[in-house]
Amino acid sequence: MISFNNDYSEGAHPQILQALQESNDIQTAGYGMDPYCEEAIALIRQKAETDAEVFFVSGGTQCNQLLIGHALRPYEAVISAQTGHINTHEAGAVEATGHKILPIYSENGKITAAQIKDLMKEFPADDEHLVRPAMVYISHPTELGTLYKKKELEALRKVCDEHQMLLYLDGARMASALTAKGNDVTLADLAKLCDAFYLGGTKCGALLGEALLVPNKACAKNMRWSMKRHGAILAKGRLLGIQFAELFRNDLYTELGKHANEMAEILRAGISSLGYEFLAKDNSNQMFPVLPNRIIDALRKDYVFATWKAGEEESTIRLVTSWHTKQEDVHDFITALSKLTLAAC
Amino acid sequence: MISFNNDYSEGAHPQILQALQESNDIQTAGYGMDPYCEEAIALIRQKAETDAEVFFVSGGTQCNQLLIGHALRPYEAVISAQTGHINTHEAGAVEATGHKILPIYSENGKITAAQIKDLMKEFPADDEHLVRPAMVYISHPTELGTLYKKKELEALRKVCDEHQMLLYLDGARMASALTAKGNDVTLADLAKLCDAFYLGGTKCGALLGEALLVPNKACAKNMRWSMKRHGAILAKGRLLGIQFAELFRNDLYTELGKHANEMAEILRAGISSLGYEFLAKDNSNQMFPVLPNRIIDALRKDYVFATWKAGEEESTIRLVTSWHTKQEDVHDFITALSKLTLAAC
Amino acid sequence: MISFNNDYSEGAHPQILQALQESNDIQTAGYGMDPYCEEAIALIRQKAETDAEVFFVSGGTQCNQLLIGHALRPYEAVISAQTGHINTHEAGAVEATGHKILPIYSENGKITAAQIKDLMKEFPADDEHLVRPAMVYISHPTELGTLYKKKELEALRKVCDEHQMLLYLDGARMASALTAKGNDVTLADLAKLCDAFYLGGTKCGALLGEALLVPNKACAKNMRWSMKRHGAILAKGRLLGIQFAELFRNDLYTELGKHANEMAEILRAGISSLGYEFLAKDNSNQMFPVLPNRIIDALRKDYVFATWKAGEEESTIRLVTSWHTKQEDVHDFITALSKLTLAAC
Amino acid sequence: MISFNNDYSEGAHPQILQALQESNDIQTAGYGMDPYCEEAIALIRQKAETDAEVFFVSGGTQCNQLLIGHALRPYEAVISAQTGHINTHEAGAVEATGHKILPIYSENGKITAAQIKDLMKEFPADDEHLVRPAMVYISHPTELGTLYKKKELEALRKVCDEHQMLLYLDGARMASALTAKGNDVTLADLAKLCDAFYLGGTKCGALLGEALLVPNKACAKNMRWSMKRHGAILAKGRLLGIQFAELFRNDLYTELGKHANEMAEILRAGISSLGYEFLAKDNSNQMFPVLPNRIIDALRKDYVFATWKAGEEESTIRLVTSWHTKQEDVHDFITALSKLTLAAC
Repeated sequence: MISFNNDYSEGAHPQILQALQESNDIQTAGYGMDPYCEEAIALIRQKAETDAEVFFVSGGTQCNQLLIGHALRPYEAVISAQTGHINTHEAGAVEATGHKILPIYSENGKITAAQIKDLMKEFPADDEHLVRPAMVYISHPTELGTLYKKKELEALRKVCDEHQMLLYLDGARMASALTAKGNDVTLADLAKLCDAFYLGGTKCGALLGEALLVPNKACAKNMRWSMKRHGAILAKGRLLGIQFAELFRNDLYTELGKHANEMAEILRAGISSLGYEFLAKDNSNQMFPVLPNRIIDALRKDYVFATWKAGEEESTIRLVTSWHTKQEDVHDFITALSKLTLAAC
Repeated sequence: MISFNNDYSEGAHPQILQALQESNDIQTAGYGMDPYCEEAIALIRQKAETDAEVFFVSGGTQCNQLLIGHALRPYEAVISAQTGHINTHEAGAVEATGHKILPIYSENGKITAAQIKDLMKEFPADDEHLVRPAMVYISHPTELGTLYKKKELEALRKVCDEHQMLLYLDGARMASALTAKGNDVTLADLAKLCDAFYLGGTKCGALLGEALLVPNKACAKNMRWSMKRHGAILAKGRLLGIQFAELFRNDLYTELGKHANEMAEILRAGISSLGYEFLAKDNSNQMFPVLPNRIIDALRKDYVFATWKAGEEESTIRLVTSWHTKQEDVHDFITALSKLTLAAC
Repeated sequence: MISFNNDYSEGAHPQILQALQESNDIQTAGYGMDPYCEEAIALIRQKAETDAEVFFVSGGTQCNQLLIGHALRPYEAVISAQTGHINTHEAGAVEATGHKILPIYSENGKITAAQIKDLMKEFPADDEHLVRPAMVYISHPTELGTLYKKKELEALRKVCDEHQMLLYLDGARMASALTAKGNDVTLADLAKLCDAFYLGGTKCGALLGEALLVPNKACAKNMRWSMKRHGAILAKGRLLGIQFAELFRNDLYTELGKHANEMAEILRAGISSLGYEFLAKDNSNQMFPVLPNRIIDALRKDYVFATWKAGEEESTIRLVTSWHTKQEDVHDFITALSKLTLAAC
Repeated sequence: MISFNNDYSEGAHPQILQALQESNDIQTAGYGMDPYCEEAIALIRQKAETDAEVFFVSGGTQCNQLLIGHALRPYEAVISAQTGHINTHEAGAVEATGHKILPIYSENGKITAAQIKDLMKEFPADDEHLVRPAMVYISHPTELGTLYKKKELEALRKVCDEHQMLLYLDGARMASALTAKGNDVTLADLAKLCDAFYLGGTKCGALLGEALLVPNKACAKNMRWSMKRHGAILAKGRLLGIQFAELFRNDLYTELGKHANEMAEILRAGISSLGYEFLAKDNSNQMFPVLPNRIIDALRKDYVFATWKAGEEESTIRLVTSWHTKQEDVHDFITALSKLTLAAC
């Protein structure tokens, strides 16, 4: 069985395991106060051309819960696409910190400055019966693999400033976003435009770990207290520092993102050439082709992948490539789909 | 510099790194639904002679917050020694879930059934102005390295039953507890006596990870929803399964605990022979000697350790041994202390 | 200025003030453990033909927050119409207790069993990445003044049972609902069909106060602890008992509801006869006529009311009648509207 | 039966009922945005010589929960005497907002600047494993009826400033405190020294209600959102405004406090003259005499009061006087106690 189920089906990139091996016997301070974390922070800051505070945590849900819970006052709410990860796939982790999510309908996973402007009309500044929207949550790429343009982010920043709202970007698959065809957003852009954003490690070759950047210093203040309070400080915090140092020392992060995207492009082109449509256009390392159910069933004998939206005749599936995806597996999948397509005619 | 600062200053036991290496390219399902976690669960259940539900999480604070937040109703409180980790060193993680901690004064880190009986007199069953004590939190070993006797745990179980309270045991340093001189408690005992308890991996040779056992099935129900809600499910959940399988397949867990204790015994005997006193008697892999400040300052040139309680002339320090502690380092420390002691006379 | 702004613009019904006066010097126990509360509970139980637990609280938001926070486990969510009071007008009070609200789109403020059945398809019983829907929140009348039919409530009960969900009904304007034209639901029906529901006092002639009935005994257990924890137990709890006893001793509650509805019917008929449309059909003591903006502006010189939905030419306004509304004021309003309408032709 | 059980056993002072009666038919805006609340706020500000923000809420627990939850960041904790109301008698309402209470031992219910200074030594500014103490909670009078001296409050203010902590004072029985023999603290002093404090109405002749003053404007910002989120805004908010306007228009508040204290003084003198001791010295309108259990049992036939601390031979009881206490009842009590005392000799 070959898995296109997600980008976290294996262990870590070999260089990361190697780095863990080499550092294994060295004694350091605990809780992320070690030289590895320091190095990783310096490398990430350099890459993003920022002096943002950087914090390492275990996973995306933890990161979102931490940042949102830390930055908002109790009565404040966060705006998200209704498809946003925090709104659908985190078992209420944001609400667990006492905050309401205000969903905005989105076809492609993105939300626009105009939509936020419209929403804010329903929240007059003096109506205490309503929550106060105080943050916009987006992801890059989105849950549907789509990407924001720099212009769109600038417009979001502007509308956030007009309403004194924070802009927070979830970058669980940032390596793929940064290296995707058509992407015009850099880490330096994000550091300028966002109050906070994170770079996913788990989905880019790390065993676990996300790097949270908080350019907004007021927002970063006392973050480590919130981390501890959420059980988000690892005793062996170096585990995250060692991995991120490895990912950013020689730009392995970019390299792994590129590989995932290249595999995705081949897959996308192959599926497209067989006449199939996709749910959304630009998909970074995820794609959502619509296939006949009979063909989907047949593919499942050899491949693992998720059904995104089941239909009666056709369904949308999700295919994910990763740093680990092999070109031969991609070609085999296309060949298999091609055969099944011909047989179905 | 040699560190006796804690038992999480290095990476992982070599066998664990080896296991990560060997499994690295194998594709599995995410979120801990993989064969490694299954194996680890089976091994732990076998070792503890129980069919308890087992959950893997990243660290102790996360584990405590998860279990307590999951098991209690909103208005219920948890009883703890005032020195308990949840009461002092978790930045309010339990209160973050809305629950009050009721501290009981303890000289040696342990609390007794009699103390709980006394406390419960102040909480009549019909007074809704007070929180309802609904859980007793203990640790084995305690924050002061002391150990519960089986009889003491049985008495705690009894008083818990009388007041319909849950008994939860924090086993961050369980490997040391189980193999400590004088310990008469087994994992099978704990599985019978506790509603929930955890076995620490982070402090026993793992990169990270704790195994939470919940023999009380009602208490375990829907735990994975609470885990997700706390950001406590790792995408690559196998990372924890692989490590715990390695720790329990051939009883590496016990072996590592034993080594830490042996190093502690040598250290304790050496310090004791120089005429120094300790804060508490049985200390598993931690010890709390009281030394003159001048000697402490001198030791700091070559050794890393924590000050537990600073005094004007003398202070109590904490020395911790681990699976990684080398016998030569222990001997060197004793020699250094011996020289400093003689010089001070 | 005459107010049709809401049903809580004045003090209390004279009989209630009278009852407060008469009982004023009598000494009783505090916290609602007094004979007045006992009597009120007995009267309400009798009226609703139930042995449900009854609790008195200060207001609707407090009541909703209390019941939902008390009844749900941390990871559980509550389904509501997107227009539901808890979803829009309580400043995140439900999320403050850690629970997500799952909104269902509704044109008229009501949700159907079929909608819930559909929603539940998106929440497979074994997916811990999603919250667990565990309660359906409805109101009778709804935010738009519409009413549930008994059959619709029975269907909701059925779907709740199928998914082991609680059914909770917000009756802030219950007096009006029970006496509205076309209503076929009794308190006894609600006591059979709902796990919990409340009877609003604030909007039916009391100074403040809502009576929460919890027929589901498991759900009621230890409720007073949750009340205290929310600051929802009044020291002079008798204040609520005295008022509810007065409202239910000789069925003043029904009488006041009837009066409000009668005034609403006259108002509705008058507006309708002038050719205006309403946002929703059955409106109990609220109505939502659509009027030209120029006429609305003119009416504002003499009348207070809320704009529900502003449009460029026309807007929807909300008119509310109450126990206190005078027939002459209603007639005057119709006359004024009639004149303005003619003038506009 | 005569009750000395508490100061909230009856309804409201006749003037307050009268004011409710007179205003009953006047229509106003809801939610406390009415002229009565405005007047009450102006009167209170004038009395306290402050421009503090003023908010009205239903009860003391609600007020404490609201202010503390609103003012603190998630990881911050509040220091309180271990006997403090928030620490013992609010069913975990503060912890419900996610905050830890750090208790300080106190014999007489008061805490000192020196105690806080000592406590803060255990909380180094850079240790994120500990909560951050960020507020000191005191009450005036305390749970034991004792009173702070102005000098003591100034010292607390100073230590709060040194540690950037807020000072919050619970004035549930403020009317008694202000008029107690030996009191040297004015409302104007409190407005200068405290970041926030409240004046209790419930225990001073109101049906319900507390007035929260927040001189610290940063701390007051957006308070009404937190109020709504806690279900603490009454639809008929005027109910609180009318009462507080009545209490402060002609200084009824002071007058009622004085009466309660005068009754307490007679009671205290009488008990004292019979040779009995008290738990604490200055007791405002509460007193805690230590009496033989047999005499206590006999008194219970005619009087209602609480046992504060039960002993084998003797117990401490609590007697509370109020605006409503009659001099003849006080004399009767003393006579009864005198007879019982003689009989026991």
